[in-house]
Amino acid sequence: MRVAVLIGGVGGAKLASGLMQVVAPEQLTFIVNTGDDFRHLGLKICPDLDTVMYTLAGLADPEQGWGIAEDSTAALKSLEQNYGVEPWFRLGDKDLATHLLRAQLLRRGHSLTAVTDCLVQRLGITARLLPMCDDEIPTIIKTEQHGELGFQEYFVKHRWQPIVKSIEHKGCERAAMSPAVSAALETADVILIAPSNPWLSVAPILAVPGLRTALKVADAPVVAITPIIAGAAVKGPTAKIMAELGLDVSEAALARFYGDIIDGFVNDIRNQPLCADNLRTVQLNTLMMDTKAKDDLARNTLEWIAGWAL
Amino acid sequence: MRVAVLIGGVGGAKLASGLMQVVAPEQLTFIVNTGDDFRHLGLKICPDLDTVMYTLAGLADPEQGWGIAEDSTAALKSLEQNYGVEPWFRLGDKDLATHLLRAQLLRRGHSLTAVTDCLVQRLGITARLLPMCDDEIPTIIKTEQHGELGFQEYFVKHRWQPIVKSIEHKGCERAAMSPAVSAALETADVILIAPSNPWLSVAPILAVPGLRTALKVADAPVVAITPIIAGAAVKGPTAKIMAELGLDVSEAALARFYGDIIDGFVNDIRNQPLCADNLRTVQLNTLMMDTKAKDDLARNTLEWIAGWAL
Repeated sequence: MRVAVLIGGVGGAKLASGLMQVVAPEQLTFIVNTGDDFRHLGLKICPDLDTVMYTLAGLADPEQGWGIAEDSTAALKSLEQNYGVEPWFRLGDKDLATHLLRAQLLRRGHSLTAVTDCLVQRLGITARLLPMCDDEIPTIIKTEQHGELGFQEYFVKHRWQPIVKSIEHKGCERAAMSPAVSAALETADVILIAPSNPWLSVAPILAVPGLRTALKVADAPVVAITPIIAGAAVKGPTAKIMAELGLDVSEAALARFYGDIIDGFVNDIRNQPLCADNLRTVQLNTLMMDTKAKDDLARNTLEWIAGWAL
Repeated sequence: MRVAVLIGGVGGAKLASGLMQVVAPEQLTFIVNTGDDFRHLGLKICPDLDTVMYTLAGLADPEQGWGIAEDSTAALKSLEQNYGVEPWFRLGDKDLATHLLRAQLLRRGHSLTAVTDCLVQRLGITARLLPMCDDEIPTIIKTEQHGELGFQEYFVKHRWQPIVKSIEHKGCERAAMSPAVSAALETADVILIAPSNPWLSVAPILAVPGLRTALKVADAPVVAITPIIAGAAVKGPTAKIMAELGLDVSEAALARFYGDIIDGFVNDIRNQPLCADNLRTVQLNTLMMDTKAKDDLARNTLEWIAGWAL
């Protein structure tokens, strides 16, 4: 069963862990948000790609959910203490290896898809990891207090405290879906939308031209997993942003957001049952607090979808 | 007394330490070999500039003579262990901060002279540090065993073991002396040539078009300090290269190498007295084993030259 997963960073990586336990890695393709990508210290940083990549490689920091486990920050401290460069974005020393290697490969003219393939192979990962797009589509957050903010400014510098007025996917009109993403969606048996932030992590993927249509015409069922449990987000600003955009903080509002691109919705057992025309729903434990919960959610979701064909 | 110093890496840095103790730093200008510069992991690495810079900033590793004291190598280990990249050139984590910052500034279009100024100021160094040239003049070593080698290949990868046939300063014919170097030589009261490797560290500086002439026409006396003591080099391949190039390993051969660009030569007390027409010589302890010896050599050299005017 070939599974393609639209995925963001930390929240999505938990589902990725679970899927790695219940599906052969060769059958898995992760299509990762790159709207958060930015340049820092002259290096291209891809936070979501790295979080998923480190998770698949078994290198991820289990505590904070991003970065490499047991990393140090000697380079960053040297920048601060010796050169007075304020380290607003934390980069570990081990993590720097990834950014240096990526920057070097990109400078040779390879696409981000090809460079990611190279990193993934060197890390011994057999699942496929694809950036949502080879073109840059930076997520811009329009806020009440600070006007337009780049994603990392909003998320890291301002700790997602400014009130969001709208979100833009800058340059998406000039971008194109990569052949690899197109093929992954065409050949998948199941397409999942991870319980990542729908506005900050999934919407940028859906903004890639042709991607919404590819989901609609795909033979595979498309199933989203709720990131909202009992009216709140497990982590991060999903609920806060929904409220700021004038939406109910509810699973129903999520299902409406995804609209006709999804065929199924995995709701949480703690939520109200969801009734919507043309949408299959199930209630599962989506709170992935430990390894077992991650595996169970992945297994139960796929088993539920497999049952549709019966 | 304004002192300009032509200088390479480790050996030269010892003299730099001494000079910092006996001359006001604002009066000191170091003109540093950049023939060793190369690209590594997509970053421009300037080994000699960094060695002198770290020495002046009090950050240098006192044991190995290059790099930053008490540095770690987590990034390099991650490159090796996670990505299989062989770390033939050692870069510490703290040291990486320098290379990242330099690369970022260079990419903004600043010259190496301007970028070095910026790094030096941030490090709180009040002496002037100048790359010998803003153009790249890579030192190429023609060897018996391996043909042409880039400097770092020869020096680090092959640990200066191949037999040297000749040394080329690639692209020097298209390079130009920087206004800063030109001004430093014009306004100096004394010009020193540090006891760095004459062939690997000083010759690249002398290969900068116009620099030899600038030394000859300078009002200031030009004085070289011997890197050869009792027929051997204190460290590194100076003596080995002299032999391979068919020269006597002697202070007399060194004086002939510098020829008419020097007015004085600081010979070591352990060497034979040197007799040459039109060349003032003195015998001092040039073996800089400790702080006192560094300071003494700097002080005694400058006092000796000051005596010429009497």
